[in-house]
Amino acid sequence: MTTLTPKTIKFLQSPTSKAWVEQAIAHLDTILLDHSHCERKAASVALNLMFRYPSNRSLVKALTAIAQEELQHFEQVNQWLERRSIPLAPLSAPPYGAKLKAEVRRDEPERMLDLLLVSGLIEARSHERLGLLATHCPDPELAAFYRGLMASEARHYGIYWTLATQEFDRPIINQRLDELAAVESAILATLHPEPRIHS
Amino acid sequence: MTTLTPKTIKFLQSPTSKAWVEQAIAHLDTILLDHSHCERKAASVALNLMFRYPSNRSLVKALTAIAQEELQHFEQVNQWLERRSIPLAPLSAPPYGAKLKAEVRRDEPERMLDLLLVSGLIEARSHERLGLLATHCPDPELAAFYRGLMASEARHYGIYWTLATQEFDRPIINQRLDELAAVESAILATLHPEPRIHS
Repeated sequence: MTTLTPKTIKFLQSPTSKAWVEQAIAHLDTILLDHSHCERKAASVALNLMFRYPSNRSLVKALTAIAQEELQHFEQVNQWLERRSIPLAPLSAPPYGAKLKAEVRRDEPERMLDLLLVSGLIEARSHERLGLLATHCPDPELAAFYRGLMASEARHYGIYWTLATQEFDRPIINQRLDELAAVESAILATLHPEPRIHS
Repeated sequence: MTTLTPKTIKFLQSPTSKAWVEQAIAHLDTILLDHSHCERKAASVALNLMFRYPSNRSLVKALTAIAQEELQHFEQVNQWLERRSIPLAPLSAPPYGAKLKAEVRRDEPERMLDLLLVSGLIEARSHERLGLLATHCPDPELAAFYRGLMASEARHYGIYWTLATQEFDRPIINQRLDELAAVESAILATLHPEPRIHS
């Protein structure tokens, strides 16, 4: 186990608790299965955003690349499941995603800003937590795998942020990001009893 | 223009009419834009099927590959749009997809069989029509592009067929395929007034 402490992620208001790390490391198989679902969902989120804004060329281009990368990760995580003989199975989602989705305002252009920032926040949190798994995972090969994925997640939240800046003014983005990041941290302040990437 | 006549596709009960070919060739820009939407939708269909059957490893594996390939095609078609200065824009869908979806039975295991066969039929029809575009398109480079995509579409309907055979008995599949293929051909018997891949 290395002593590397992941840097604080700019998007996030509160760092992940020790309790989450302990819960995750104690249930690595469940975390891997949940991770598989997360990667598939992340690909869907990118595709759905393209469906909503089909005329926005730079958004479509950026999200196509994200969706492709998430599907690659989905495959890679599934190979880990196979290797550890963890059967693919449905898994109940923690409240995280639904609670963040509930914050998305209904009308445009607010809806677009919120969708981009919520997606960015989720990627930022994934980046932070994969980093924690990379640091604390007792299996060095699996730790290396998590370390490899971290860079992509960081790139993804950067892309969501850049897309927001192409469409909205900085002060508007910053204010809304503050609000949504506060909600995001509040959701995770209570550890979900079931081990998940976003418990 | 080559004189190649595409072979009859096994899945399909009626070949595409000359009227469709004339409509499509007369509106190649609209066909390209619709094609872009079709590739994105095909990626979504594969992802949604995985969401529905998350524990079926061979299905998840095969559909991940299909979704990845559809996203690649989506990117390639979008490059063609850019090259021809066709702006990305929403486009009303022809009734084809919704009418086929309405044939999918609600209960399992019938639902799974119908979803696989409907997806296979759509891929088979796309394969046939991309072949017709390859044969009749006056731009040789675009024709070559269509020819390149044909092989993937053929592989995709083969995969949907194989997935069906892994889960269901041949006589049951054949009978249901006959029924759905009859509906599919009936939907296309009347040319949709707006040029689309599935008009």
